[in-house]
Formats: sequence, structure tokens, C-alpha cells
Amino acid sequence: MGYPMARRCVGINVPLKVTITGEHAVVYGYPALVAAIDRKITIKICVRPDREIRITSRRAMIIGDISLICSEESCRGDASPDYVERFFSYVLKAIEISSKIFGDLGGLDIEISSGIPAGSGLGTSAAISAGVVAGYSYLAGRSVERKDIASIARRVEIEVQGAASPMDTGAVSLGGVLLVKPLETEVFKRVELKKALEILIAITPKKRSTRETVSMVRDLYNRRKTIVDHLMRAIGEISEEASKALEEGDLKTLGELMDINHNILRALGVVDRESEDIAEIMRTAGLEGVKISGGGWGGAIIGISRDRSRLEQALNSLLETGYTAFISSIDFRGIEYEEILK
Amino acid sequence: MGYPMARRCVGINVPLKVTITGEHAVVYGYPALVAAIDRKITIKICVRPDREIRITSRRAMIIGDISLICSEESCRGDASPDYVERFFSYVLKAIEISSKIFGDLGGLDIEISSGIPAGSGLGTSAAISAGVVAGYSYLAGRSVERKDIASIARRVEIEVQGAASPMDTGAVSLGGVLLVKPLETEVFKRVELKKALEILIAITPKKRSTRETVSMVRDLYNRRKTIVDHLMRAIGEISEEASKALEEGDLKTLGELMDINHNILRALGVVDRESEDIAEIMRTAGLEGVKISGGGWGGAIIGISRDRSRLEQALNSLLETGYTAFISSIDFRGIEYEEILK
Repeated sequence: MGYPMARRCVGINVPLKVTITGEHAVVYGYPALVAAIDRKITIKICVRPDREIRITSRRAMIIGDISLICSEESCRGDASPDYVERFFSYVLKAIEISSKIFGDLGGLDIEISSGIPAGSGLGTSAAISAGVVAGYSYLAGRSVERKDIASIARRVEIEVQGAASPMDTGAVSLGGVLLVKPLETEVFKRVELKKALEILIAITPKKRSTRETVSMVRDLYNRRKTIVDHLMRAIGEISEEASKALEEGDLKTLGELMDINHNILRALGVVDRESEDIAEIMRTAGLEGVKISGGGWGGAIIGISRDRSRLEQALNSLLETGYTAFISSIDFRGIEYEEILK
Repeated sequence: MGYPMARRCVGINVPLKVTITGEHAVVYGYPALVAAIDRKITIKICVRPDREIRITSRRAMIIGDISLICSEESCRGDASPDYVERFFSYVLKAIEISSKIFGDLGGLDIEISSGIPAGSGLGTSAAISAGVVAGYSYLAGRSVERKDIASIARRVEIEVQGAASPMDTGAVSLGGVLLVKPLETEVFKRVELKKALEILIAITPKKRSTRETVSMVRDLYNRRKTIVDHLMRAIGEISEEASKALEEGDLKTLGELMDINHNILRALGVVDRESEDIAEIMRTAGLEGVKISGGGWGGAIIGISRDRSRLEQALNSLLETGYTAFISSIDFRGIEYEEILK
């Protein structure tokens, strides 16, 4: 009986993201254009009285609940496939790095909910990393700027994956549309939209991880350096021009640039047959810009149009064919906190 | 009764050609790789006792015989669709230019036979222009080098079309495989093959003329100059590397380069859906390199493989689907003469 013990908790909402143009090229230092979307991952973090780390994930779309309990020595989970391990490794690394920066909080309960499967090219791992870092800093009583959360979350990605562009963690932390220039001092340039942008997003299971597709492109680059470098430069220029098109509200030009970018990604060998089939369904419905978004070989395929009804028509065609798809707006808020007491 | 009057005649065989890599980019001065194939156009030219020009064409694949009779003042044909007029305009221009260079021969009977439809991206107009120039020079008693025939035939193409790269007339006149560098003093560099090269060629009716596709690309270039220039540079480099791959007998590399080139052509917007379907049939049959050849929007789609049986498998798949296709070897002879007396 009586009231439960008061525990300090925080809820974090982190948007997911699409790469409008520039994936792969951004790995080589060229600009990319990225947008946070109104689909979010929510993370609830509470300080525990003991030193255990309990992580629970609810991901409606591909698997049921999964969880992991860690003591100081080891972790045990109720599900052990690779992707669960991979998924939780971002959380554990984010806790480890955060505790070094913000001080030790002891044990934590972490509950992650997302309607979007991990590995869909929508920046799930970046959102989880940034969300845990943000929550940890909040519970440690520290006020941290979004761009610093982005930067710490990128460290998490780099330590887990071996390498990571600043793009994903920047987009999910800051929100909005960003022109990312990895080699410049000011990495993120905020793109002001003249018109609202709605994006049709289709998702298929990834057949190869981003790490694999990045390595495929690296392999091609090593063999055909001059050719691939020209293609990367073309993609970088596409992102610069796409950014201007968005600022001018010129969705026709944006669409043309996305189409060119998609076909250069085909030339780089990262567009599989199923993604191309989905792209073709979107084109047939009259969308002006259709492109894979992310590393390729499955994941997200995005489409835009000046005409809302065409987006809906394409959405219906995709759903009727049995694909997972939805229309998303841009998220302009980035990471958000909500204090929870219970 | 009696013997027919002896007339001076000559027969000319001119190979057709495929562009292995580099179409469109060659218009902007970048290298292209072109090959003469063992499918030929034959042209028989006889001097007439009067001043009439009688042109007859036998093109088995798309139409029956067509013919044109010209006096000094005008021409009348038994068929008048646009493409007939376009087709004969090369012959008449070749006669006009040849007569200025080699002297007036008076009336001519010209009989053209080809199993390949004009406008298929296989250099029909170049072959006809070069063949008539070669025949005319022969009948005028002049010995002319193949490269000079190529150069005069290019003038014919330029006067009829408004513009023309030296590629097609060079390939059909000289034969073999050539790396074409339009901006260099030595425009044609002969590529010595280490291994025999067989090419699967599928043909569909062209939905847009080469003039139209060149103008589409020009339009894109004017709007997106930096991007398109990077793509053209990439294509130019592809042709240089493809030429090396052929000299080394490395068909795997050649195939990879063709695939990249094809997708850059997609990015340039010149690959229509039907050509892509044909390309996909070839890919499904396991070909290593698959590419449109020529301006795009129909015409020729080519494929190569290290494995002869795969070429045959792809050929069968195409024929079963109802497409026109054949396997061709490289022609190393270029323009050939055979004297005819009758």
C-alpha cells in the first residue's frame, strides 16, 4: 500500500530522418541534404535504486517486445538475434559515454518505443543514441545544447559502427532540414523551407546493412577511383542545388535532382531490384522525385510531388501491392524532453 | 536480244556499329568506345547513261522495298513517310558532296540492302553516307583512304543533321574497335583486342530520334551544368578504362564499366522503360555488362558476358519475349569494295 517510491524519470521524443540527397557521397566529405520527419522514437529513462540497466523495446512493426537486463558484469536478454544485440549496443554505448561526460547515475530503466523497424535507413540508431544521451544528461541535471547531443551521439555511432557521418545524429537532434557539409567548420546549415514538404516513404527490410553498402561503394571507389569521384562530386552538387530548390519552394527541380541522384546511386550499385520496383510504382503514380534514402539494398524509398493527391495515389498503390508506406511531414522540433514523475 | 550495255558498277559493304561506352558524352568532347559489327549494309552503285538518280532500298525488317527517282529538278518516291525522306537525304547529300570532290558522274542507280532498320542506334545513316561516298569515289577512279571517307561522310551527316560526332562514320569506315577522342589531333585510337568480343544486340523501334535525345541532354546540361559535366567526365573516364579492359581481355571489368555507364545514361534521362525492361532481361540471364547503345529511347540495347552460353540464354529470353535480337562479332574490315560488271 502507500505511494510508490518517487523516481526521477524523463521522456524523450526523437524524430527519425530521411536523406533527401547525398547519402554515400557524404561519407567522402561531399554535402548531403537531410530532413527530420514527424515519425518519432520515444525513450523513457528512469533512475533505478540499484545498479542494473534494464532496457525494454517496443517495436510494433517487426518484432514483439524485447528486453535486456545488465548488471555491472554482464547482460542477459530474452531475445538474442543479432539485430537485438546490435540495437541495444547503441543504448549501452550511449550510457557508457554519457556517464563519463555527465557523471554516473547508477542503474537505469530504459523503455524504447518506435513504430519503425531499425535498419530502415531512417536513422533509428542515431535517434536511439541521441535520445539516450539527451535523457542521461537531463537526469544528471545538465543542460546540453542539441548540437552537443548530436556530437556525443555521433561518438556513440562511431564507437559501435567503426565510422559514421555527422548527418544522422545531426538531423534527429536538431530537427528540420539541414544541408550537411562534413568538411566545413559549420557542418550543419539550416535550410528554410518556402513551402511545406511532404514525403512519401516506403520501407522494405534491408538486405544489406549500411556498413555493407558503404563497404560495397568503398570497394568500387578503390577499383574505379576517378569515375566514382566524378559521381560523388555530382551528388554533392545535387545536394547544394536541392537545398536551393527547397529554399525557393521549387519542388519540380527538387524532384529532378532526386531522380538524377537515384540513378547515380544505381550506378554505384546500391539499388536492389525490390527498391527499384517500389521506385517504379511511385513514378507510375506521377511522383516527380523518387529515390532510395539511406545506404540502399532495401530500407527506405522516398518520393515527392507538387501535387498532394499524387502522393496519396502512390501511397495507395504501394499499400495495395503489399508494401509498408506512409506520408510524412518535416519535424522542426528535433529532440524534445518531457519530465515524468511516477 | 543481245547483251545488256556494259555499265560501270561497284558494290560496297559497310559494317554497322555499336557504341560500347560514351554516347552523349562524345558530343561534349569526351572519349567514347565504338565497335564495328559483322552486320552490314550493302550498297550497289552503277553509273547510268542519263542524269537520273534512282535509289532503291531493301530493308527486310521494317518495311518492304522503297525507292526514289530524282531528275535534276526533283525527286519522286513510291513511299513518302518521314523516315524514308530522312533515309534518302543521306544518299542525296553524299552524292552532292562526292560530286564536288571527285567530279560529276551523271546519273546513278543506287541499291541499298540492310537487315537492320534505320534509326536503331547502329549507325545506319553513317554507313549509308560512308558507303555512297566510297562507291562514288571508286567509280570516279579515285583511291581514297578509309579515314578520308570517314571525314567526308561526317560532312554528309553534319549537313543533313546539323551536327554529328566523328564516332559513327569513323567506326563504320575503319572497322574494328576505336577509342574516339573528338578533341585530339588523332581522333581515332585503334583498340587491339586480347580476346574475341561477342555482343548481344537487341533492337526496338526508336521512340525519339538521336537528334531529340541529344537535345534532351543539352537541355538538362543547360539547367544543371555542373552536375551534368561531372557525369560526362565520369563517362569519358569509363571509355578510357573500358578501352584498357578490352586490351587486357578483361570482360568482367568491361561489363562493370558498361553497367555504370548505363546508369549514368539513366541519370541523364535517356533510358525509356522498354529499353530498361530489355536490359533487365539481359541482366537476369546473367550478362555482366548491359547498356543502351546510342541516343536512347529505344534503338539498341547491348550486352556482353565472359560466358558464351549466357549470351545465348539472354538471346533466347529476348526472342521468346518477342524482341528482335542477335549476337554479333566485331568487324575488322571496315568499308570493302567489290567490283561488279554487268
